[in-house]
Amino acid sequence: MSSLILHSEASSDGVLERDFSVGDIPGTLWAPADPTAPTTLILMGHGGGLHRRLPAQIRRAEHSVRAHGFTVASIDAPGHGDRPRSADDEKSVAAIGHARRHGEPLAPIIADLNHSLAERAVPEWRHVLDELQQLPDIGTEAPVGYAGMTLGTAIGIPLTANDSRISAAMFGGYFDYGSLIEAARRITVPVDLIVSWDDPEIPKETALRLFDAIGSDDKMLRAHVGTHERIPAHEGEHTALFFRQHL
Amino acid sequence: MSSLILHSEASSDGVLERDFSVGDIPGTLWAPADPTAPTTLILMGHGGGLHRRLPAQIRRAEHSVRAHGFTVASIDAPGHGDRPRSADDEKSVAAIGHARRHGEPLAPIIADLNHSLAERAVPEWRHVLDELQQLPDIGTEAPVGYAGMTLGTAIGIPLTANDSRISAAMFGGYFDYGSLIEAARRITVPVDLIVSWDDPEIPKETALRLFDAIGSDDKMLRAHVGTHERIPAHEGEHTALFFRQHL
Repeated sequence: MSSLILHSEASSDGVLERDFSVGDIPGTLWAPADPTAPTTLILMGHGGGLHRRLPAQIRRAEHSVRAHGFTVASIDAPGHGDRPRSADDEKSVAAIGHARRHGEPLAPIIADLNHSLAERAVPEWRHVLDELQQLPDIGTEAPVGYAGMTLGTAIGIPLTANDSRISAAMFGGYFDYGSLIEAARRITVPVDLIVSWDDPEIPKETALRLFDAIGSDDKMLRAHVGTHERIPAHEGEHTALFFRQHL
Repeated sequence: MSSLILHSEASSDGVLERDFSVGDIPGTLWAPADPTAPTTLILMGHGGGLHRRLPAQIRRAEHSVRAHGFTVASIDAPGHGDRPRSADDEKSVAAIGHARRHGEPLAPIIADLNHSLAERAVPEWRHVLDELQQLPDIGTEAPVGYAGMTLGTAIGIPLTANDSRISAAMFGGYFDYGSLIEAARRITVPVDLIVSWDDPEIPKETALRLFDAIGSDDKMLRAHVGTHERIPAHEGEHTALFFRQHL
């Protein structure tokens, strides 16, 4: 198994940003530049077709460091960001584009692609977490949370179900296919589930079914007006409060 | 119209508590004992069959003062707490008890009673708010929010729809009868709606219909596991965050 290699380091306004890689998985860490207390580690997944260094992701990570003292880690999912796409992934992405243009059902294609990506991404995240816990400013004592929407949820649900180090998780904007529901039933840690109430691509009923499936006694559903592409900015503060309460 | 009369005053651990009355309406105010900044006023409604000085209400009010610097005002609803019940209210309460014991539908009886109580309570709250705004430590500049579950929602929805001084509101645990839905449609300020996901007396579908009806562009639904009688303690912090964001 590959070790974590730090590539670059930059500090800005209280945030230390470090790019790293573990084998062929590229990642970024955002942490307090001047840590005063033990930190909390948030693993941050990105959405389908996006990547770890999207401006919105960077803003969210930097705000989590500055406002809450969290350390945030993000990696590119297989076939995303700086990583090559497999021929099968290319076919799925083309099929999604075709369905979108022709108003055909997206859910089955996205479910298949996300399930395949999650099967590859879960062991990657677990190995990256092993490596992050070797860093002196994180260690094995820092509580670990996971946060991710859409593809970040498709990966995060089986990851949270399978890795007992993750003790609270935020999800949102997923599809409710069988393997995802099965993994959701095995989650017992606190969950914060975000639902975009008027999303034309993700019917809210699928979100309510997923909420019902999650095995945790302590789970919270939060719905807001609009689509998964326009989450109100103040939602992020509720997620941070959720992590402060549970980590 | 009657003026506000202050009856007693006690300070404890940073909270100044004052009992007051406006005509035959008894109320309590909880405020920072040593105010350092302009305050935010939260009008707090109580649940059906309960009253303003329930231990859980007092704890919630005191915490809002200490943790967030809010000023909290609560009055007894008609026929509740220190106030006499009308013969009609007695009949409704007896009918609710009977239906509960015999497993008969509660919603229609509670809807009728709550509608009648709200018709009386809304002008009372508005007059009490006029009077509270005369107090030097509140004034007309303090932003005003409303928070209340069950009966507190049955009263709070038409109150918020009819009084433009209320600029954000938290509701939960209601029944979705016609006049309540009609008032909800006229609400345009930010709303935080709490849903008890497994409540045997209040089906969650009624909550989802009410959420759809609320006229605000900025509304948030928050569901938790359990019943409306056992709201997780950490829910209150999300409501406080909602008020800090919107008031």
